[in-house]
Amino acid sequence: MARTCHTSGVASVPVGRVTGSLSTPALDELSVEEPLEIRVAERAENATPTSVAVTMRTPGDDMELAVGFLFTEGIIAGPDDLEGVERTGPNAVMARLRPGVALDPAKLDRHSFVSSSCGACGKRSIAAVRVLGRHRIVPGEPHLAPEVVHGLPQALRAGQSGFARTGGIHASGLFDATGRLLGLREDVGRHNALDKLIGAELFARRIPLAGRLVLVSGRVSFELVQKAAIAGVPVLGAVGAPSSLAVDLARGCGMTLLGFVRDARFNVYSDFGRIDSTGFLTDSA
Amino acid sequence: MARTCHTSGVASVPVGRVTGSLSTPALDELSVEEPLEIRVAERAENATPTSVAVTMRTPGDDMELAVGFLFTEGIIAGPDDLEGVERTGPNAVMARLRPGVALDPAKLDRHSFVSSSCGACGKRSIAAVRVLGRHRIVPGEPHLAPEVVHGLPQALRAGQSGFARTGGIHASGLFDATGRLLGLREDVGRHNALDKLIGAELFARRIPLAGRLVLVSGRVSFELVQKAAIAGVPVLGAVGAPSSLAVDLARGCGMTLLGFVRDARFNVYSDFGRIDSTGFLTDSA
Repeated sequence: MARTCHTSGVASVPVGRVTGSLSTPALDELSVEEPLEIRVAERAENATPTSVAVTMRTPGDDMELAVGFLFTEGIIAGPDDLEGVERTGPNAVMARLRPGVALDPAKLDRHSFVSSSCGACGKRSIAAVRVLGRHRIVPGEPHLAPEVVHGLPQALRAGQSGFARTGGIHASGLFDATGRLLGLREDVGRHNALDKLIGAELFARRIPLAGRLVLVSGRVSFELVQKAAIAGVPVLGAVGAPSSLAVDLARGCGMTLLGFVRDARFNVYSDFGRIDSTGFLTDSA
Repeated sequence: MARTCHTSGVASVPVGRVTGSLSTPALDELSVEEPLEIRVAERAENATPTSVAVTMRTPGDDMELAVGFLFTEGIIAGPDDLEGVERTGPNAVMARLRPGVALDPAKLDRHSFVSSSCGACGKRSIAAVRVLGRHRIVPGEPHLAPEVVHGLPQALRAGQSGFARTGGIHASGLFDATGRLLGLREDVGRHNALDKLIGAELFARRIPLAGRLVLVSGRVSFELVQKAAIAGVPVLGAVGAPSSLAVDLARGCGMTLLGFVRDARFNVYSDFGRIDSTGFLTDSA
């Protein structure tokens, strides 16, 4: 089939490269996309593992992805809920719950938070996430100079492996308040890149991420703000645009949401107080 | 909350616009994102409607989105399976099946095709989609001059309403073989934009989309190729990059997949024969 080479999340495929009306054969490098099944096993007699999700992801950091996903979807409350995580196949990971920890069937639907607001307008969903994320986002800190924010996209790009080659992979980067890159994960799915990043911090027992910044390479949706909020991220930036519900949720959670972070400019959508800039900023939200 | 104005999928929000170290208050326009619940009612005694999915979408064309989703996920085989579709709330749509048509529980999982390949590498999943899409993609046509492909991104942009203003919305456009824009839908979710487009064609009973081209504004994943294949789209182009599994699936389905369609250039990833260009193209896949 298509793949002639497949290392580190990149596949090399033969293409016809058309310029004007001329075509030439060439090799193109693509981000690998494959399904990962995430299963959870309860520590009970006769319990069979439950298939919690199948996500289309770029292989690599699969354990971190699985644990990050279970945490940011509210299925586990933290690392202490887990006895262990193991790979059960090339595209399958199983998490084992500690004795006494049970799966809540209501949380197994990928969109359980969102479902709770159906027919309304997302408000009940926002309330649900706010409860989950309560006490996780520390108000008022960190304080950031705009220059720190301006430096994030370049630091993210410098840390990336695949992006420049394929033009088709998302990245999430974790930074301290001086703009130093602490961690970076990539994936074809933007939510997977963030889950991998948060999963790695969860393994290292550094959740909540107080005082940290996260920058994502693309746009920022409700789902990404929700995941970051559950991990206690106080400042979430995106190279692209946020959606309306992403802004609503960030405001509801006390998170500073930054959009269009590029070319020494950015927009502040919520909790302006964390950005030290001269001008006429008022937290009018 | 955030929204001060909300018409046609665009919300206007107050932001701090930071340039260098100076910030100024401004209004920014964002794509609206809200949940839509899609329910299906069987025509049986005592049947209660089943909640099939909750998708985060930009409001507008909700009926087309629901019907397109049900079709491209394999839950209905075509418009004849439906008795009607109705709005049951601002963010809820219900489809009523015809007497004798039943919901297949195996297809209610959003990722049912993908699930069937877990632990392997997506190959069984591809086989499943190929069966579903069999006879839908007509081989060998249409034949396209490269100039027709080069013109698609500009035609898509010219037809868009929100993209230029927010920088945060995806578009899917339907074209005939001369490059004429036949239909266009927008959404914060790339899969929703395609489902809306396909849903509109399903309402008009123009499925399969033989001889047509579809261009999507972003990257192209497995999921988008799957949806296009089920609708019989012979040529799928993307302004951005495809993933490895998108290419594998397009090759398996006999679809011509084009990537990086911009600036009078593009890459052909599969079924090269539909592109009339001078050069050394061979269908070596």
